[in-house]
Amino acid sequence: MGAKNAVVLLSGGLDSATVLAMARSEGYACHALSVDYGQRHHAELAAAQRVASALDAVAHRVAHVDLNAFGGSALTDMNIAVPEQPSEGIPLTYVPARNTIMLSLALAWAEVLSAQDIFIVDYSGYPDCRPEYIAAFEQMANLATKAAVEGEKLTVHAPLQHLTKAEIIGQGVQLGVDYSLTVSCYQADHEGRACGVCDSCRLRRAGFESAGIPDPTRYYGV
Amino acid sequence: MGAKNAVVLLSGGLDSATVLAMARSEGYACHALSVDYGQRHHAELAAAQRVASALDAVAHRVAHVDLNAFGGSALTDMNIAVPEQPSEGIPLTYVPARNTIMLSLALAWAEVLSAQDIFIVDYSGYPDCRPEYIAAFEQMANLATKAAVEGEKLTVHAPLQHLTKAEIIGQGVQLGVDYSLTVSCYQADHEGRACGVCDSCRLRRAGFESAGIPDPTRYYGV
Repeated sequence: MGAKNAVVLLSGGLDSATVLAMARSEGYACHALSVDYGQRHHAELAAAQRVASALDAVAHRVAHVDLNAFGGSALTDMNIAVPEQPSEGIPLTYVPARNTIMLSLALAWAEVLSAQDIFIVDYSGYPDCRPEYIAAFEQMANLATKAAVEGEKLTVHAPLQHLTKAEIIGQGVQLGVDYSLTVSCYQADHEGRACGVCDSCRLRRAGFESAGIPDPTRYYGV
Repeated sequence: MGAKNAVVLLSGGLDSATVLAMARSEGYACHALSVDYGQRHHAELAAAQRVASALDAVAHRVAHVDLNAFGGSALTDMNIAVPEQPSEGIPLTYVPARNTIMLSLALAWAEVLSAQDIFIVDYSGYPDCRPEYIAAFEQMANLATKAAVEGEKLTVHAPLQHLTKAEIIGQGVQLGVDYSLTVSCYQADHEGRACGVCDSCRLRRAGFESAGIPDPTRYYGV
C-alpha cells in the first residue's frame, strides 16, 4: 500500500516550503497546490515549482483565481502601495478571504484525490490564520464533501502555528529545505531576488539571525 | 442612508435568479457574483448577465476559477458524460467543493464591500447545500475576516432551502422574475436553449407543470 495523499498549500515562501518538508517527513505523498490570486510576485510561483521539485512533491498544480476583481489589498490591488513599515493591527497586505479561498481549492483537490489531509501555513496577524479559524474550516469541510457524507474525516494541519520564524527555519534546515530556492519578498524581482525592506523581508532576515543560520536570500536592494 | 449591500451568487439558472429577486425584495443593494469554474455551459454566464441587469443588480462580476485542474465532475471534466437519467445518491454533476469555493469568493467580495449578507442557492442532493453545512460555513466566515475581528456578523442566506421547485417558481413569478432569461440546462447551446432531457431540464419542466405556470424555456432538443 502506498503513502497517504495530502494536499499541501505551497506559496514558494519560506514558511510553506517548511510545511511541505514537514508533511514529507511524516510520510505523506504530497500534492503541492499554489494559488495564483493575481498577486504581484509571480516570482513566488516560480519558487513554488522549484521547491515542490526539490522536496519530492508527487504533483504541483497552480490554480488561478482573480481576486483582483474585488480589490481591497496591497498584494492584489495595484493602487495600494506595499507598506515598508510594520503596521499596527491587521497588515495592509491582508488579502480578503485568502486562506478561505486557498483552503477551499485544496479541499476540491483533496476530494478528487481521496486525500484526508491538507497542510497550510498560518501567518501571524491575519484573522484567517488563528487556530479557531482553522478548526472552524475543518468542521465546515467535514460537512461539505461527498467524502464527508461517506464518513471520511478531513484534517487541516497548520504545523507552524506555535513556532517562531527562527524555530521554523531551524526545523526546515534539519529537514533539508534549501531556503535559497524560496521567495518571501512582497516585491521580489523577476529572478526571485528580494527587496530586503518590506515587512516580509525583515521578518525573514530576523529569523535567520535569531536561528544563527546564514541567510541564503538573494537581495537586489539594500 | 443607502440600502445595505449584499453579495448574491448568481449562476444564471432559475434558482439563483429567484434568490436575487428575493434579496432585492428585501431591500438589499445586490452585488451579483457569477463563478466561472470551467463549466461546460457558458450560456449560463450570459444568462447571469441578463438576469442581473433585469433584476437591478448594482454590479455583476464574474470570477474565474480553474477547477478543471483537479477533474472529478461531469460538469467540468470533459471525459465524464453528463447523465441523462436521475442517479441514486449524490449526483455525478456534483463539483468538488463548489459551494465552498463560491461562498469563499463571495466572502472576499463581501469583505471589500463591507457587506454582511451573502445569498446562495442550495441544490438538493449535494452535500454542500445542507442547512448544517451553510451554518458551518457561516461560523467559519465569522472567524475568517478583518470585519469579523472587528465584530461584524456575516449571515449566509439560503432562502430556497425548504421550497419545492414549484414553490420557487411561484415566488419568482410574483417577484417579477422573467424565467425566459434563465438557463438551467447542463448542456445548453450557445444561444442558451435547453436540451430538455438532462436532470436539470426535467426538474425545471416538472416545476413549471406543478406550479401551473407555462414553461417559457426555449428548447433545442426533444
